[in-house]
Amino acid sequence: MTSRKVVELFYDVVSPYSWLGFEVMCRYRNVWNIDLKLRPAYLGGIMHGAGNKPPGLVPNKFTYMTKDLNRLAEYFNVPLQPPADPFEVMFQKGSLAAMRFVAAVQEKEKDGEKVVNVSRELWRRIWSEDKDITEPVSLSEAAVKAGLSESEIKELLAMSTSTQVKEKLKSTTQAALDYGAFGFPMIVCHVDGKPEMFFGSDRFELMAHCIGEKWLGPQPSKSAAKL
Amino acid sequence: MTSRKVVELFYDVVSPYSWLGFEVMCRYRNVWNIDLKLRPAYLGGIMHGAGNKPPGLVPNKFTYMTKDLNRLAEYFNVPLQPPADPFEVMFQKGSLAAMRFVAAVQEKEKDGEKVVNVSRELWRRIWSEDKDITEPVSLSEAAVKAGLSESEIKELLAMSTSTQVKEKLKSTTQAALDYGAFGFPMIVCHVDGKPEMFFGSDRFELMAHCIGEKWLGPQPSKSAAKL
Repeated sequence: MTSRKVVELFYDVVSPYSWLGFEVMCRYRNVWNIDLKLRPAYLGGIMHGAGNKPPGLVPNKFTYMTKDLNRLAEYFNVPLQPPADPFEVMFQKGSLAAMRFVAAVQEKEKDGEKVVNVSRELWRRIWSEDKDITEPVSLSEAAVKAGLSESEIKELLAMSTSTQVKEKLKSTTQAALDYGAFGFPMIVCHVDGKPEMFFGSDRFELMAHCIGEKWLGPQPSKSAAKL
Repeated sequence: MTSRKVVELFYDVVSPYSWLGFEVMCRYRNVWNIDLKLRPAYLGGIMHGAGNKPPGLVPNKFTYMTKDLNRLAEYFNVPLQPPADPFEVMFQKGSLAAMRFVAAVQEKEKDGEKVVNVSRELWRRIWSEDKDITEPVSLSEAAVKAGLSESEIKELLAMSTSTQVKEKLKSTTQAALDYGAFGFPMIVCHVDGKPEMFFGSDRFELMAHCIGEKWLGPQPSKSAAKL
């Protein structure tokens, strides 16, 4: 147990590539000898802090990303479907309230399954069902689907606007920037006391090589069953 | 033989990720049932035509790319080493003369090995040895290393400034833009009469899945030997 490598996954539910990375890492945490630490953070703060611009502003890139996401979603077996207006969803509505809510869930339960389930239900709303994630009622609906009780949800909604949770989200976002983030997902593998940073959902094979594990494709249990 | 899928690789020797993609595709053309068509083009024209900006302008992204390239070079077994001043090399000096020279080589020999060898020697100069690729003497040196004779090189240097070769490079660059390029490398796989475009050097596993082939890592002969 002590030899398990700590792997931090920084993500925001507004980011579709983060969803792919999140599902892959959730599958691999039982396959690789790693201690996966989920680090919900705020992508808006990363883009601002790093001085980065959204890639979708270049028309050819935007068209490609839509195609790329559809192909990856099928290959990764994640039910991702771009919303009708990705720009409105990503850049006008944003994810600050949602990520504060996720931070509250994590603050309350520490390292459990609720933060996994709530994150996934939020992704499902925005990146599969084209539903809102900015209103309290939207967050509640996602939390109900994730298996949380009504009293818990009420408490979490209150917590999510507290200074403590706001500061928690801010400090996780700052930690990502300090590692050198300029977008999400960002995965930091701690290898021999050194952080190795990987950006995006397309470095798993290289990452496996760096941490001394084997890449078995995006659905390792399926691959393992085939071996 | 008739069932071989046509795969076009659009590249420019100024692009380090193109070098990785080029070496991988050169290795796989004898492993997969494909007909690899090399499409040397001009990245400057792509960036201008697509309205794209170089990714290295965001400091965190630049730092990451250097690290990412070093890790990938080792994993892909390509002797890539960033030059002292990548900005000068990529954006001030550029690759127009070099890519016109490569286009001339291809024009003269059609689908042979010389275009492979000359491209590789140009990459080696810029992305391994930090040497110039803008002067005729630099192009000559690369061509000598690629095994071309002095008389051939003299002819190619003359050809490379001809209207015919300039137009050839322009039309290949335009073809890439028409496929939706916004950077290089770009790989277009023709599957069931439809072009499937893949950007970058990190979609090989997905690409293999799309063309019904198997991804065996960046060094397939090594993997095949292990199997």
